[in-house]
Amino acid sequence: MIRILLHGCCGHMGREVSATALADAGTEIVAGVDRTAGPADYPVYADFSKLTKESADVLIDFSVAAAVDAVLDFAERTGMPAVICTTGLSEAQLTRIAALQEKVAILRSANMSLGVNLLMKLAAEAANVLAAKGFDIEIVEKHHRRKVDAPSGTALAIADEINAACDERFHYVYDRESRHTAREQDEIGISAVRGGTIPGDHDVIYAGDDEVLTLSHRAYSRRIFSQGAVEAAKFLARQKPGRYTMADVIAASLQG
Amino acid sequence: MIRILLHGCCGHMGREVSATALADAGTEIVAGVDRTAGPADYPVYADFSKLTKESADVLIDFSVAAAVDAVLDFAERTGMPAVICTTGLSEAQLTRIAALQEKVAILRSANMSLGVNLLMKLAAEAANVLAAKGFDIEIVEKHHRRKVDAPSGTALAIADEINAACDERFHYVYDRESRHTAREQDEIGISAVRGGTIPGDHDVIYAGDDEVLTLSHRAYSRRIFSQGAVEAAKFLARQKPGRYTMADVIAASLQG
Amino acid sequence: MIRILLHGCCGHMGREVSATALADAGTEIVAGVDRTAGPADYPVYADFSKLTKESADVLIDFSVAAAVDAVLDFAERTGMPAVICTTGLSEAQLTRIAALQEKVAILRSANMSLGVNLLMKLAAEAANVLAAKGFDIEIVEKHHRRKVDAPSGTALAIADEINAACDERFHYVYDRESRHTAREQDEIGISAVRGGTIPGDHDVIYAGDDEVLTLSHRAYSRRIFSQGAVEAAKFLARQKPGRYTMADVIAASLQG
Amino acid sequence: MIRILLHGCCGHMGREVSATALADAGTEIVAGVDRTAGPADYPVYADFSKLTKESADVLIDFSVAAAVDAVLDFAERTGMPAVICTTGLSEAQLTRIAALQEKVAILRSANMSLGVNLLMKLAAEAANVLAAKGFDIEIVEKHHRRKVDAPSGTALAIADEINAACDERFHYVYDRESRHTAREQDEIGISAVRGGTIPGDHDVIYAGDDEVLTLSHRAYSRRIFSQGAVEAAKFLARQKPGRYTMADVIAASLQG
Repeated sequence: MIRILLHGCCGHMGREVSATALADAGTEIVAGVDRTAGPADYPVYADFSKLTKESADVLIDFSVAAAVDAVLDFAERTGMPAVICTTGLSEAQLTRIAALQEKVAILRSANMSLGVNLLMKLAAEAANVLAAKGFDIEIVEKHHRRKVDAPSGTALAIADEINAACDERFHYVYDRESRHTAREQDEIGISAVRGGTIPGDHDVIYAGDDEVLTLSHRAYSRRIFSQGAVEAAKFLARQKPGRYTMADVIAASLQG
Repeated sequence: MIRILLHGCCGHMGREVSATALADAGTEIVAGVDRTAGPADYPVYADFSKLTKESADVLIDFSVAAAVDAVLDFAERTGMPAVICTTGLSEAQLTRIAALQEKVAILRSANMSLGVNLLMKLAAEAANVLAAKGFDIEIVEKHHRRKVDAPSGTALAIADEINAACDERFHYVYDRESRHTAREQDEIGISAVRGGTIPGDHDVIYAGDDEVLTLSHRAYSRRIFSQGAVEAAKFLARQKPGRYTMADVIAASLQG
Repeated sequence: MIRILLHGCCGHMGREVSATALADAGTEIVAGVDRTAGPADYPVYADFSKLTKESADVLIDFSVAAAVDAVLDFAERTGMPAVICTTGLSEAQLTRIAALQEKVAILRSANMSLGVNLLMKLAAEAANVLAAKGFDIEIVEKHHRRKVDAPSGTALAIADEINAACDERFHYVYDRESRHTAREQDEIGISAVRGGTIPGDHDVIYAGDDEVLTLSHRAYSRRIFSQGAVEAAKFLARQKPGRYTMADVIAASLQG
Repeated sequence: MIRILLHGCCGHMGREVSATALADAGTEIVAGVDRTAGPADYPVYADFSKLTKESADVLIDFSVAAAVDAVLDFAERTGMPAVICTTGLSEAQLTRIAALQEKVAILRSANMSLGVNLLMKLAAEAANVLAAKGFDIEIVEKHHRRKVDAPSGTALAIADEINAACDERFHYVYDRESRHTAREQDEIGISAVRGGTIPGDHDVIYAGDDEVLTLSHRAYSRRIFSQGAVEAAKFLARQKPGRYTMADVIAASLQG
C-alpha cells in the first residue's frame, strides 16, 4: 500500500486525486496540505511544518505555481519522492528542480494523461520529418471557461517537445490579429479557445501543400489526470533519486 | 449571355473567376481591370477611365480594400451592378456602399460560397438559443500561410451575424495569452491558424456544460468562391438597384 | 416541487436521473420502478401494479424498448404525463403513443440534450438547402464500447428529421463494404464508431463540390441527458394531454 | 532527366501524374499505356507489346487491379523499376510482386502522400502502446461520391500496419448495424463515408477511458498523390532490384 501526501488537496484536482486514490486498492492518502481548508477523509495541514520523511511514501502536488516552493523545500528536507503536476513554474523553480534530482526522485509533467504524453512523443516525431519538408506547425487548445492561463501548460509543453526535436528553430506566436505580416516558417502558432466545461482538447496541426496531418487529444473528464498522477506516485515511490517523466511511467506499465 | 467586367483580374482569385466564367456557358468576361498586368483572354485595363455603362452587364470585384474606391466611383458613374468580394473595407467604404444602393444593384459578401453563407445563418440561429442558455461562443479559422490579415473577413462576418442575432451583446477577443483573467460571458474568442495551402476552414463552437455544438465549414479549393461570385453576377445583372446578399442568390437558385 | 416516478431507476441513466433530480431544488423522485433491484433513496417497485395516478406528477422512462409497453399501460390507466427517453421502440409502440396523446401528455425524444435537439433542427434546415444543390449527406456517430445497438437512436432521429424536411427522398445505408457501387444521390450513409467511454458524438456531414459543411455535437458526460429529462419532466407535469417534443421544452425555457 | 512510362495515363490520376511530371524539371513522361485513348503530350499505347527495357527508366502504374498483371509481366520481361499505386490487388498479385523483387526494383504503396505514410508509422506506434492499455481502435475514412470500393485501400493499409505492430491480434469490422453485440477488444472498426468531391480523409481513433487520441490526415487535392508517385519514381529509377516503400523515399529525401 503506497501512502500518499497530497499538496493542494482541497482544490478541484486535489479532490479528483483523493477520489482516485480511494478507489485504487494499492494507494491511500495519509495526509493533505492546503492553505484553504476543505472536507477530506484524512488530516489536512495548512503547511508542511509538522510533516516528516516518515509521514508518507510519496508526495503529489496539484496546486499553483507560487505554492510549489514549499513543496521543493519539503522534498529537499526529507528526500520524499515528489510528483509535481502544477504548471506555469518559474525559471528559478525549474532550475531548482533540476538541482534537486541528485537527492530526490522527482517527476514533473504538464499533463498526467497517458494520451497526452504519447501525443507529445508522436508530435515531436512528426515535426522532425514534416518541418524538414516545409510543413507549418500550429497548436490549438480548448479548455473550460474558468481557466485563467493561456495557452495551457500542456500546449506549451507540446511546443517545447517539438522545438527540442527540431534544433530549437521555432518561436511561438499567440496573436495574429495585431500583426499584418504573412506567417514565417520558423513560428509555431498557439491558439487558446475557452468555453463551457471542456476538460482539455489539444490539436497539433501540420499543414503542408494540399495536405494536413493533425494529432488530437481530447479529455472527457479530469479523472484521467488524477489517475495519471496516482499511477506516477506508485511508480515514483519505488525509484532512486533522479529525474523521471510520464514516459518512464508508461514504459514501466507496459513492461509490468 | 451575361457579360462580366472583372476588377482584380490578374490576382489569384481573379484568375479563378476567369476560369469559372469561361467554363460557364451563360457568362463571358468581356474586360478586366488590374493595376498589375498579367495574361488574360480579354482586354485588361489599368483603370476604369475608358470603361462605360455599355462595357458590361455586371462587375465582379476581387481586389484589395484600397482599390475598392475606384470600383464604387465606377458603379456610381455608370449604375453597373457590382458584386464586391473584397474584404477588410473601411467604415467610409461601407457607408458609401449603403448610400449607393439607391442607384445601383450591389451585392457585397465576405465569402461567396454557398456553404459559408448557410453556416452564417445557422450560426446566428444557434447563438440565439444557446447564448440564452449560457453557452460560450468561439470561432477558429484556418487559412494558408500567405494570408496576411487575421482573423479572416469571413470569421468576422460570422461573428457580426451572431452579434446581430443577440442584441450586439458580444465583444471580440483575439489574444488570450496577454490576459490573465477568466473568460467573460459576453465575449466571442476568435482564433486564427495559418499554415500550408489551406483554402479556408471556419469552426463556430458553442461550449456549454458537458456538451459542445460545432458548426464547421471547410473549403477544399478556391473554386467555390469564384463559382459563388459568378453565380452572384448572373443573379445581380437582372436586379433593380438595391442591396443584395448571397442569401438572395441562394434563395433565387432554390426557386429557379 | 414536481414529484417524479422513475422507470428504469437502477440502470446507468436511471442513476444519473436520480442524482440530477436530487440536486434540483424543484424536483423530487418519489418512487422508482425497475425489474432489477439496486440501491436507491426512494421506494423501488418491481412493476407498476401498486402505483396510481396520485403516486407522482410525472413519469420519466429510461429503460429498454421491451419494457416500454408497461409504461404505456400505466400512462393509459392513470393519465400521468410521461417523458419517454428509451430508444429503439417498435412500430406498434410508436402507433400506440400516437393514439395515447388524446388522453395523456407525452414527450418522447431519442436524445434529451439541448445541443442535440438544436442540432436536429439545424440539420433539417441545412439539408433542405444543400440537398437541392447536390450536396451528399452522411452521419457519423461515436459511442462507448458497451453500446449494443448501432446506429444510435439519435443518429436515426437526425436522419428522420432530415428526411422529413426533404420529402422523404432518402434511404439509409449502413454498410459500404459489401456493396461495390458508387454512392447514390438519395442515400444517407450512417456510420457507427464504438470505443472507450465516449458518451455520444454525432456529426452530420454535407459534402458538396470542393466544400463540406459539418454540424457536430459532442457530449462530455451523460449528465446532459439526465438534465434534459428532468427539465422535460418539469415542463410536462404542467401540460394538457397531447404530444410534446424537446423543442417545446427549449422554447418554453427561452420564454420563461 | 528521369524518363517515365505511365500506365493508366488517361485516367484521373494518370492525368494528374502527367501534369506533375511536366512541371518537374527532373522528369519527363516518354510514353503512356492505356486501354482507353485520351489526350496526351506523349505517345499512348493500348498495351505493353511494343515497349522495351530501353523505352523508359521507370514505370508508374495508376490503373485498376485487373490491369496490374500486364504491368508485372512487363516488369518481369524488362526489369524496369515499377512504382505501383493501384490498390485492391489480389493475393496472387501480391505474391507475384514479392517474388519479382529479386529481379526488379518495386515500390508498391496504397497511398503516395508523405502525410499518409507518416500517419501509418505513427498509427502503428500509438497502437502498440494504447492497445496494451485497453484503448479501442477505429478508423473512419471519407472519400468522394464516385469512389466504388470501400473501405479505401489506404484505410486497410493503416489497419494492416497497426495489426502488424500488435501481433496480428485484430480483425476488422465494417458494419455494426447488422450485429447486436457489444464491441470486442480485438476488433478494429472501419467506417467509410462517401460524398461530394472529398479527395481523401483518414482518421485513426484510439478511445480509452475518458480520453480519445485521434490521428487525422486530410488531402485537399489529388496532386499530393501524383507528386508522391513522381518522387517515388525518381528514387526508384536509381535503385537495385528489391522491395521498397514510401518510407524509403521519405528517408532518402530527408538525407538528400
